[in-house]
Amino acid sequence: MADATKAEAGPADAGPADAMMLKPAFRLTGRLVATLRTADPADFRTHAVESLPLAGGGIEGDRHFGFTRRSGGREPWYPRGTEIANPRSLTVLSAEELAETAAALGLPGLDAAWYGANLVVEGVANLSWLPRGTRIAFAGGASMLVCDQNAPCRITGRAIAEATDRPDVELAFPRVARRLRGLIGWVDRPGTVAAGEGFTAFVPEQWVYAPPR
Amino acid sequence: MADATKAEAGPADAGPADAMMLKPAFRLTGRLVATLRTADPADFRTHAVESLPLAGGGIEGDRHFGFTRRSGGREPWYPRGTEIANPRSLTVLSAEELAETAAALGLPGLDAAWYGANLVVEGVANLSWLPRGTRIAFAGGASMLVCDQNAPCRITGRAIAEATDRPDVELAFPRVARRLRGLIGWVDRPGTVAAGEGFTAFVPEQWVYAPPR
Repeated sequence: MADATKAEAGPADAGPADAMMLKPAFRLTGRLVATLRTADPADFRTHAVESLPLAGGGIEGDRHFGFTRRSGGREPWYPRGTEIANPRSLTVLSAEELAETAAALGLPGLDAAWYGANLVVEGVANLSWLPRGTRIAFAGGASMLVCDQNAPCRITGRAIAEATDRPDVELAFPRVARRLRGLIGWVDRPGTVAAGEGFTAFVPEQWVYAPPR
Repeated sequence: MADATKAEAGPADAGPADAMMLKPAFRLTGRLVATLRTADPADFRTHAVESLPLAGGGIEGDRHFGFTRRSGGREPWYPRGTEIANPRSLTVLSAEELAETAAALGLPGLDAAWYGANLVVEGVANLSWLPRGTRIAFAGGASMLVCDQNAPCRITGRAIAEATDRPDVELAFPRVARRLRGLIGWVDRPGTVAAGEGFTAFVPEQWVYAPPR
């Protein structure tokens, strides 16, 4: 489903092109297959909802809502509880990567709710590898910006272990789900999204920074 | 000044590694040499200040302050004036790239104020190429996250043309300054920064997403 678009520039005029490869922007298309949110702020797990209103700062009332948040174990470089920017107000999984992870764990399937995910999409291969800065624009007008790959953690592993009665999954999950764990990001343009809605992922120019030797 | 750190993972366990090269994270160091902000909300140009308090959402009272902003000519995919996320509350230039741009334009120097920049740094080669997701952590504790390369525009070109009495610069600037235009980003951890302060740039893992053929 790749639709390469004209690059703004090629490596020839890109400055230190020998060290920093530059790939043109392109777009991909896919479909939203589920929307989920938290119910209880003390529980990271989400539950499916018919549609999801995306506001500035994320999903109002959701555990991860807010332009800022308190730092935790994922940001060991800050004292715990420091108020920092919140680029993880939305989390996205792909149906394909969920199936791949389930197969690797020997499970019949995996529920995005156990991950605490907000959106499940299909149709984009290797979703977890979409680069930072990708804009996912839903057909209804809402959009999100991808901030990073999500990292697998034992908390999700434990939720899956409990739900499937497979205690070994708690430890295995972080390793098995590595780079299959979807994306984190924040709302770019507010709006409501619902399962069945199509989207276009605008993959920006990509390059690799290499410091001079 | 590159200090390669242990990669979390090599391409061997990185999934679709043939299509998506993965580079380990590393860090660079540099120094902040100037801090600037807008004075008049109707004028995009900035002026030097002794120190700059960085808050959630940017620089309070500055023209670009806010977790959200109204879309404009840089976002032709939204109706003008749509409220969207604001990943450009801070702009950063490098002293080296300013000098390179000045030389290419045949000018003795360029003032970051004409760009409307907030921070000028030195010591990081090819600053404009730092990848999205780089965290710039200042010695005093404040930090910012890099959202994108900035794009040169005719508005800056006109400001330089006026200040230098070189009308030809208005049109030449966007071409000459391409990929020398610094970075945009937002505050990660609030705090005050001042010229002379050192920083560490934490360059994250980098990869290139290539859709399956």
